[in-house]
Amino acid sequence: MKNKKIAILGAGPSGLAQLRAFEAARQEGVENLPEIVCYEKQSDIGGLWNYTWRAGLDKNGEAVHGSMYRYLWSNGPKECLEFSDYSFDEHFGQAIPSYPPRAVLRDYIMGRIDQEDIAKYIRFECPVRWVTYDENTELFTVTVMNHKTGQQETELFDYVVVATGHFSTPNMPHFKGLEQFSGRVLHAHDFRDALEFENQDILLVGGSYSAEDIGSQCYKYGSKSVTISYRTSAIGFDWPEGMDEVPLLTHFDGNTAHFADGTSKHFDSVIMCTGYLFHFPFLPDALRLQTHNCLYPDHLYKGIFFQENPKMMYLGMQDQYYTFNMFDVQAWYARDFMLGRIQLPKAEDRLENMQHWLVRHADLKSSIDNIDFQGSYIRDLHKETNYPEFAIEEQGEMFKQWLQDKKTDIMAFREGSYASTVTGTLATQLPAPWLAIKDDSLESFMALDFISLEEQD
Amino acid sequence: MKNKKIAILGAGPSGLAQLRAFEAARQEGVENLPEIVCYEKQSDIGGLWNYTWRAGLDKNGEAVHGSMYRYLWSNGPKECLEFSDYSFDEHFGQAIPSYPPRAVLRDYIMGRIDQEDIAKYIRFECPVRWVTYDENTELFTVTVMNHKTGQQETELFDYVVVATGHFSTPNMPHFKGLEQFSGRVLHAHDFRDALEFENQDILLVGGSYSAEDIGSQCYKYGSKSVTISYRTSAIGFDWPEGMDEVPLLTHFDGNTAHFADGTSKHFDSVIMCTGYLFHFPFLPDALRLQTHNCLYPDHLYKGIFFQENPKMMYLGMQDQYYTFNMFDVQAWYARDFMLGRIQLPKAEDRLENMQHWLVRHADLKSSIDNIDFQGSYIRDLHKETNYPEFAIEEQGEMFKQWLQDKKTDIMAFREGSYASTVTGTLATQLPAPWLAIKDDSLESFMALDFISLEEQD
Repeated sequence: MKNKKIAILGAGPSGLAQLRAFEAARQEGVENLPEIVCYEKQSDIGGLWNYTWRAGLDKNGEAVHGSMYRYLWSNGPKECLEFSDYSFDEHFGQAIPSYPPRAVLRDYIMGRIDQEDIAKYIRFECPVRWVTYDENTELFTVTVMNHKTGQQETELFDYVVVATGHFSTPNMPHFKGLEQFSGRVLHAHDFRDALEFENQDILLVGGSYSAEDIGSQCYKYGSKSVTISYRTSAIGFDWPEGMDEVPLLTHFDGNTAHFADGTSKHFDSVIMCTGYLFHFPFLPDALRLQTHNCLYPDHLYKGIFFQENPKMMYLGMQDQYYTFNMFDVQAWYARDFMLGRIQLPKAEDRLENMQHWLVRHADLKSSIDNIDFQGSYIRDLHKETNYPEFAIEEQGEMFKQWLQDKKTDIMAFREGSYASTVTGTLATQLPAPWLAIKDDSLESFMALDFISLEEQD
Repeated sequence: MKNKKIAILGAGPSGLAQLRAFEAARQEGVENLPEIVCYEKQSDIGGLWNYTWRAGLDKNGEAVHGSMYRYLWSNGPKECLEFSDYSFDEHFGQAIPSYPPRAVLRDYIMGRIDQEDIAKYIRFECPVRWVTYDENTELFTVTVMNHKTGQQETELFDYVVVATGHFSTPNMPHFKGLEQFSGRVLHAHDFRDALEFENQDILLVGGSYSAEDIGSQCYKYGSKSVTISYRTSAIGFDWPEGMDEVPLLTHFDGNTAHFADGTSKHFDSVIMCTGYLFHFPFLPDALRLQTHNCLYPDHLYKGIFFQENPKMMYLGMQDQYYTFNMFDVQAWYARDFMLGRIQLPKAEDRLENMQHWLVRHADLKSSIDNIDFQGSYIRDLHKETNYPEFAIEEQGEMFKQWLQDKKTDIMAFREGSYASTVTGTLATQLPAPWLAIKDDSLESFMALDFISLEEQD
């Protein structure tokens, strides 16, 4: 029998998880593994975790994937995203703090992968142009643009795994008068360096992670003032002086923004922290997931298998508390389906299963509920795979503590320390307040004199 | 016989020219005109001439088409782009200056089109996703994303006219050290408002129209200094104090740029005026024009018909001295082919014809040569169509004068006046120097007291 052939679209955390899952099967001794091709738009692995100075379009004229910025530090404890099969201790050889900068986490992601070994699967600078499925041959046709050669490539596949993420295509609303605002207007996706906004009065529109984190960055790096405009309810942290929350922006009059409470203020720049779109310009409707950002997108059985054609799989399309380890469990599950170890129920049974989860999903009322929901979703997948056991529920409790930490001091929550559920190691502490550590490179971070809390006991 | 069906991709100056060409045939009494569908990514007609405050991606997550900015004025005399069948006099009812702001020219483009009448052909917010051609049915399949409905649409066509432009996808080179430059780095495509760069030291990389015009804008609107870095030779105008040209940028060290002559300077922002890519993410290689910006792209017979499949047509893909009226002549020619009035020679004869032009093209040595070449290209097309006669060669001489005007005073060339070759009307003069007129809206421009040179005689 001819080996099956799999296309993985994207080599970020989800796509790499899929490659790793098959590698784990190979190490288990599974033979006749499927042939894998992983298409990646960027010129390196890492997905969102690659920093780029570019904004808008990349060197090949493709939409820039990266939404990360200089001085970005993890906004959740690293102990909640630790790989079960590759601990932080194994990678760094020492305990490090719970909230490392981007470059440090990227180094960890890269470390799990034998880059030479997987390089053979990945075709870089190959954005996918179009995918079709032929009911007769039961094969997918994937056409990509290979920017390295300047020519397109078309291949047939038995399975397609979409791992292209959903935090790359900005949702950019219009507000009346923006055409005449004569300062910079950008989306969080294009935010690169807080120093560009030094000494400026900045307006952030939006009330979620982007506003919270970019606002804190701008404060840290010397913006004159930071104003966050929320739609429904304030984020509500105890912001430092110079940071404020105001109700929804209604319109601009020149460089003056007006808000729903009748107040107004002059701004130098506006950063839209208004979220992201699910954008799959390479997929026909018959294969295309249509959803907004939520914990249980409809039409995905087990959060993975496209209902209309389960040989079309999606990884990481959920809104996320859990990240890397959730992607792993999904990838292991998808792998086992592709290896024939897991049989999917028939369409109506898949539908019934999804309905069950969607009903639970509709009932979620708080962040605590959300965390528990995502935990039980992962547990449900995990029990059918051989992904190494991990403390899903214990990590859920960490997320709840993290929410508290942010409430206590949004400018200092990154100074907290959590214990690894994989190795038990307690994270070390930063030697100075987060606000005082301005160089975030891997080298300078790792050269800090971390404080061991265990030795102090 | 069933009517032929035509897809026009894009509703900017070229796409509108194609619609107008068929409308002219209808007015001549031609019956059984083809059925036309025009797909447009933006939510209005006008193409590049629509100003948008957006940069990067648009509200639907598609690449922003617009490269124009606030305060952009025509950089060539309007008399060189006048429609032969719709004069400036007819549109404005009065003589206006030779170099109007963007909004004024856009108004003129829109005025020729009966917008209600053509609205029925155009599907807005419909970026094209993928085009294929079936050798057996001899039909194109065009799939578009209709963002208004959220669903895709697929239709079959006999002909496809690509009118999507080639000044929308930035060519963005990398220079060593850019990752650590802590100011703003953008491409001319994303430049929106010179006031964002007030009091800044600005570096422009590139030696063509974008650098020249954005540099002048930044000077006009109060940048502290403007430095233009060229690759091969300086633009060479007599720049005002505060504007300088330097050789090629070699690398950055923090916010200090180093140049090939060993000099260096600290900058607040960098604007890459490094041109554009030909980017057709919706076309398979079999239908895709692959070229750089030049006056005679290879593989296009008559500069229009894709050699490998002449039912695939391209408008406006040349580098441009002539613009609107060249697009018109191309659109009239393409129309006559689609109406069966013009028969194309067989492939080898088309090839021979292209070779003839490519040889001439390879011999061009100066801007004067270039202008003459494009004039004779247009003349060659024009003689086979019934597009109203226009003074192609006379306009060529105007272009040559325009080059002189810029050399004489780059900050004042827009104060020159040319006579229409369509109506003979001599353009009026601005009542103040271009540098002094800072509000460029249609209303305020038309409210200026233009000075009639004819009355002064």
